[in-house]
Amino acid sequence: MASSQKTFKGYGVTNPNHWSDFKVIDYPAKNWEETDVEVAITHCGVCGSDVHTLTGGWGALKTPMIVGHEIVGTAVRVGSKVKGIKKGDRVGIGAQIGSCYSCRQCKNDNENYCLKKIDTYASQYPDGVRTQGGFANGIIANEQYVFPIPDGLSSANVASMLCAGLTVFSPLKRNGAGPGKKVGVIGMGGLGHYAVIFAKAMGADVYVFSSSTSKREDAKKMGADHFVCTSDGNFTEDLRFTLDLIISTRDAEDFPFEQFLPILDVHGMLISVGLADNLLPQTSIFNYASNGSFFGGSHIGSKKEALEMLALATEKNIKPWIEEIPMKDAKRAVEGVKANKAHFRYVLVQDIN
Amino acid sequence: MASSQKTFKGYGVTNPNHWSDFKVIDYPAKNWEETDVEVAITHCGVCGSDVHTLTGGWGALKTPMIVGHEIVGTAVRVGSKVKGIKKGDRVGIGAQIGSCYSCRQCKNDNENYCLKKIDTYASQYPDGVRTQGGFANGIIANEQYVFPIPDGLSSANVASMLCAGLTVFSPLKRNGAGPGKKVGVIGMGGLGHYAVIFAKAMGADVYVFSSSTSKREDAKKMGADHFVCTSDGNFTEDLRFTLDLIISTRDAEDFPFEQFLPILDVHGMLISVGLADNLLPQTSIFNYASNGSFFGGSHIGSKKEALEMLALATEKNIKPWIEEIPMKDAKRAVEGVKANKAHFRYVLVQDIN
Repeated sequence: MASSQKTFKGYGVTNPNHWSDFKVIDYPAKNWEETDVEVAITHCGVCGSDVHTLTGGWGALKTPMIVGHEIVGTAVRVGSKVKGIKKGDRVGIGAQIGSCYSCRQCKNDNENYCLKKIDTYASQYPDGVRTQGGFANGIIANEQYVFPIPDGLSSANVASMLCAGLTVFSPLKRNGAGPGKKVGVIGMGGLGHYAVIFAKAMGADVYVFSSSTSKREDAKKMGADHFVCTSDGNFTEDLRFTLDLIISTRDAEDFPFEQFLPILDVHGMLISVGLADNLLPQTSIFNYASNGSFFGGSHIGSKKEALEMLALATEKNIKPWIEEIPMKDAKRAVEGVKANKAHFRYVLVQDIN
Repeated sequence: MASSQKTFKGYGVTNPNHWSDFKVIDYPAKNWEETDVEVAITHCGVCGSDVHTLTGGWGALKTPMIVGHEIVGTAVRVGSKVKGIKKGDRVGIGAQIGSCYSCRQCKNDNENYCLKKIDTYASQYPDGVRTQGGFANGIIANEQYVFPIPDGLSSANVASMLCAGLTVFSPLKRNGAGPGKKVGVIGMGGLGHYAVIFAKAMGADVYVFSSSTSKREDAKKMGADHFVCTSDGNFTEDLRFTLDLIISTRDAEDFPFEQFLPILDVHGMLISVGLADNLLPQTSIFNYASNGSFFGGSHIGSKKEALEMLALATEKNIKPWIEEIPMKDAKRAVEGVKANKAHFRYVLVQDIN
């Protein structure tokens, strides 16, 4: 069976000039290996990354492109060397689908920082096959990148946790979000709403920063303790030396993140999980020196963290705010994400026969 | 004695258009308080900050200006409420000379991040008197900012530790420099040479980064384990995921610090203690995301750290590389610092009668 190559069907974009026009296409899966799991996809969340990729923000679009990396489905084929998953299990796949499996990062629960990491789509497997995402009926992945899903979580609810959720869970967890810590969230969209929910579930005192008051009520319902309208008054002065950690989900290159540095406590950290297409604004070193603050990045999370996140979600009965849409309406979903209309995440439901 | 105001003599710059022309002037000391110590200055190191200040890089020069914040001398008067210093003690004063003494930072060994911190010169005491620095025959400071000097250290050797040394010691100490850690130093000048010496004394594996090979031998003599000429080959690729911590002393605004982010290990930190006059260059968030790295700042150090540094210097018999110059030759010293001629720090020796 080693070289049998399967074909999947997915909603692909085939014309770079029509980034949101999808049609069902056939495409080759990766070559099967006995460490792999084949997943029949039932749900796939819609991520800002999909829009960055389709619009060419992160590099010219290569067609055909099937995006989607918040994948939930059923394990329908399981390799003989797979240990933790059996046929019929409900499983998920996030934004990473491969790595070298042997470097220090891979061996240290930092496989999300492996130099040879493979993105779930718009990348390439070692066998040369292009990776294609979850707006499709199936996908094959190494067991390492297939996460068992606890019974307590619905497939629709868990889908968007696998990129949006994990991307904020990892920096929250790694930087001590919990009781006694003040955690800020900038940009309450798909990722941001998870940051609020998870930071609260971890026990932190949660601040939401938004440029208008329109999301105030939603933020409170999600558990935010404080809501700061950044266009209203001088929040930078009011909150000097307050926050231990800020997660920013803003991905605009003109995001003036420097104004948030002074509200960090001594050695506080502002971590941007938003990935702007272009360069970030210039900053003054004095805004870092005055409180010994840091600006940094983060890249999704490890499998270990994904499993911790799913356990926390089960324990705390966490439900994201999602809208389910038939997969054939992917156009509406990606255009909605681009227009910031998602409230707060779209999840596509399988409809390919 | 509460309101007696003393006059000191110092080498001051009196004409903003002649930033390096010094002449002896009289000026008022701060009003005496019983928590104060008066120091008869014997030595004062010359810092890059002095040049930034005198040349107007950090704001228009207010004259008369007496710079210098690496001060060593003898306690000649000690307030009745002073507990840790007695008349005749050899003491030092660094770049900070006051704070609020009551905020969370002040009570938490982070007084160097107090919002009301007072710089040793170019600032103002609560009584309205301007602070003036150590190119002078005396200074008065609250005990908190007066550091007892161990017998094992000479006054000339300890002077430049009090700003240059402490400025790099603090971020090294706070971020785990020690056995098993790989620590990089960018810019081996006054601060950088201390970073090499202290990082080595702490037990770290030390990398020096320099744009030419001219400092290779000096770096090795100071204890550097590795010397990387950044204009020679592709060090960014060669050293991917290697350094745990990098201290940059570069204070040029065109310093392309972004090329150092990829050589940081996962969640490694690049801390700039150099304070550029103007804005730092733009960066791409992808260089932070690929390894979860951080860029940050730091501001001198706390008294607790200053005492730890002096203890380490005593224990390890650490001697900085300095050149002693009579205080009347301050012009040669500041011009030497501006031209990067210091090898690696000038220390002025008292000559005011």
